[in-house]
Amino acid sequence: MTNPYELYYWPGIQGRGEFVRLALEEAAVPYRDVARRKSGMPALLASLDGDAVEHPSFAPPVLKADGLLIGQTANILLFLGAKHGLAPRALAGRLWANQLQLTIADIVNEAHDTHHPISTNFYYEDQKLAARRRAADFTARRIPKYLDYFEGVLQHNRSRGGYAVGARLSYVDLSLFQLLEGLHYAFPRAMERLAPGHPGLMALRERVAQRPNVAAYLNSKRRIPFNEDGIFRRYPELDE
Amino acid sequence: MTNPYELYYWPGIQGRGEFVRLALEEAAVPYRDVARRKSGMPALLASLDGDAVEHPSFAPPVLKADGLLIGQTANILLFLGAKHGLAPRALAGRLWANQLQLTIADIVNEAHDTHHPISTNFYYEDQKLAARRRAADFTARRIPKYLDYFEGVLQHNRSRGGYAVGARLSYVDLSLFQLLEGLHYAFPRAMERLAPGHPGLMALRERVAQRPNVAAYLNSKRRIPFNEDGIFRRYPELDE
Repeated sequence: MTNPYELYYWPGIQGRGEFVRLALEEAAVPYRDVARRKSGMPALLASLDGDAVEHPSFAPPVLKADGLLIGQTANILLFLGAKHGLAPRALAGRLWANQLQLTIADIVNEAHDTHHPISTNFYYEDQKLAARRRAADFTARRIPKYLDYFEGVLQHNRSRGGYAVGARLSYVDLSLFQLLEGLHYAFPRAMERLAPGHPGLMALRERVAQRPNVAAYLNSKRRIPFNEDGIFRRYPELDE
Repeated sequence: MTNPYELYYWPGIQGRGEFVRLALEEAAVPYRDVARRKSGMPALLASLDGDAVEHPSFAPPVLKADGLLIGQTANILLFLGAKHGLAPRALAGRLWANQLQLTIADIVNEAHDTHHPISTNFYYEDQKLAARRRAADFTARRIPKYLDYFEGVLQHNRSRGGYAVGARLSYVDLSLFQLLEGLHYAFPRAMERLAPGHPGLMALRERVAQRPNVAAYLNSKRRIPFNEDGIFRRYPELDE
């Protein structure tokens, strides 16, 4: 038997680690959320760039699995998708899933930068004016552009099952769920306006939330609530 | 015989398309740079989200290859690397290359946002103050952090050939070359300060530039010069 997987991610936030957690939970893969255990933080930091690490990571999340240390969220999902049935087997489908995941990563970066448009090295309070400008553009133009795109992806899918890729659930659906959860948390007014125009996405969000493994996870203590240290922050002054 | 590949990217800039061009050029893969031909722009736009497109892309670059339409730079390189000998064959090496490419994509995004910290929907002139703050942090803290990381990757590589991944050139080396070219173009003073502390990277930059296919490409008209419409822009007020 192989050892259970180990996830290394900041203990107090969902962040980018949540996209990995959702895939592990849906696939019922045993894993340890290392940094959330006692003295987990030193382990987290050593996993990034310790001298003994052959493949250091620039930032978490990092997954230790099958003797590999894998960094970058979309890269971890590429691995998990192939190994645990959360992505198509054929090359075309795998590339398509990866492309969509990378586009999700792009909007996640933009969502983060609404509250940190200048630098993560400064407090939010020290970049509030720029944050308001960036957030106004994000809610008015960028969120709609991304949601229109992903809604189109669902509508273009010839399998007509309501999933993003092919006829079955993939990690892309889990990530779209997390993206929509985050946007609803951070920008409730903007999302209330945009939801009716994106019925496929809203239905997907419901469908993912109701999957037994996902539902059990969301109701467990393993799911960290959204908060104002994470990527999706509810600062009312940044909503529309 | 299959058709030559088609690359769809904005015609006037290197941008993210350049990472794809360098891989195609190094591997001597025949390709058409579609948007740089007559009436190429409509073709570019239709390739993104035309109704007949099964796998629409949110943004270029897009590569048409073997009947596939592949978007997202790192995803295109994942495909090219596997097919044209620009990445390791084993899973561990492929994931490691992809992880590094995604980390390069992160600093490329940050480099872009030094001149557009608020939104690409506004002119640079309308976000200059925020740009100066973001660029100051980028040159003082973010570039060094990334360069230290990539220098460490080169030093940790047990193959000791000076490449990023294993004992042979991969698309990661080509992308590191392009990143370093861009940073030197946009931030010459910062890079003059940082170069001596990163000898492995500077040697890699030289080594890639001297590869016959790359050198021929760089001296051809196919290589678009850096300019102030691209990702890496020389705005002296943003350099340190």
